[in-house]
Amino acid sequence: MKLLCDYIAREGRILPGNIVKVDGFVNHQIDTKLLYQMGEELHKNFNNCNVTKVLTVESSGIAIACATAQFFNFVPVVFAKKHQGANTKDEAFLSRVHSFTHNNDYDMTVSKKFLSKDDTVLIVDDFLATGEASYGLIDICKQAGAKIAGIGIIVEKAWQDGGKRLRRDGYHLESLAIINSADPEKGFKFAE
Amino acid sequence: MKLLCDYIAREGRILPGNIVKVDGFVNHQIDTKLLYQMGEELHKNFNNCNVTKVLTVESSGIAIACATAQFFNFVPVVFAKKHQGANTKDEAFLSRVHSFTHNNDYDMTVSKKFLSKDDTVLIVDDFLATGEASYGLIDICKQAGAKIAGIGIIVEKAWQDGGKRLRRDGYHLESLAIINSADPEKGFKFAE
Repeated sequence: MKLLCDYIAREGRILPGNIVKVDGFVNHQIDTKLLYQMGEELHKNFNNCNVTKVLTVESSGIAIACATAQFFNFVPVVFAKKHQGANTKDEAFLSRVHSFTHNNDYDMTVSKKFLSKDDTVLIVDDFLATGEASYGLIDICKQAGAKIAGIGIIVEKAWQDGGKRLRRDGYHLESLAIINSADPEKGFKFAE
Repeated sequence: MKLLCDYIAREGRILPGNIVKVDGFVNHQIDTKLLYQMGEELHKNFNNCNVTKVLTVESSGIAIACATAQFFNFVPVVFAKKHQGANTKDEAFLSRVHSFTHNNDYDMTVSKKFLSKDDTVLIVDDFLATGEASYGLIDICKQAGAKIAGIGIIVEKAWQDGGKRLRRDGYHLESLAIINSADPEKGFKFAE
């Protein structure tokens, strides 16, 4: 999505250690016009998949999930909650996820009331790096017996292998911007 | 907002201790059509306030903040981040907030880049109970020197005193549903 790549090139920042910051328009301050356009674009990519629910994980996936769901005729959004050591196994689907950012494990949970085998789920998130969060959400869909329409991402960092793994495993993955490299001196390079 | 009160009466649940659960349509699964209509309604209430930013706090305020911002000609949303013991005082506005739900204190922070004295802020959140979160966001606006247009809430629990305090302190507060009482046997009573 050229509009998004232009935003990242203009307003994104690169910190030492290849850390990409888009907190001016994606995940602290949100450019809501861009958000709306990104939701529209994700809808185009999964338009014919009979999506019944959009699934994400708190916090920064919630905005893009809601923007996207509007274009799917206002299907519900479900957001997984993050806990340290959740204790809700009977009432909730639970997946343990490792966070490389914070170097810890957390549990993501979704109440069993809100996902079922009748659902076709579009998984949405703001960032894709190692893919841990995506695989956690996939795990939860599998526990629910739900179909997975695909995975829609705002920013994929292609030098980490989450995208590669997801595509190799046969998931329909669409990333609105794929950054091949981010160097504090040379700037961003995007995939064609 | 009659539509929302009808939703709460039909789908909300009351747990022992006057705990109101609206997780089927507000803060775990989100009814995105209702969300859109709630955003429209909040816009009607603050239409003439020259709002430049919508401010909320992660996680469950993000959805209503984004839905509302659309109707204000797509002004930016800023969401405060929650930390245990934040260490960002130089770069961020910080307010310490007590959570009665979790019986602990947390720090909410907003980067100094995203709020200034030129802003007129609409504060938005899903729940209003004791008002701790709202006063934290007010504190952050004051640190930034920003004007406060008002506070828009989805569900106000009127038997806790947050609403009373905010109105007494002169803030323009609009709650889409005001629940006067929630009893597991007698159900919900809403303000007229």
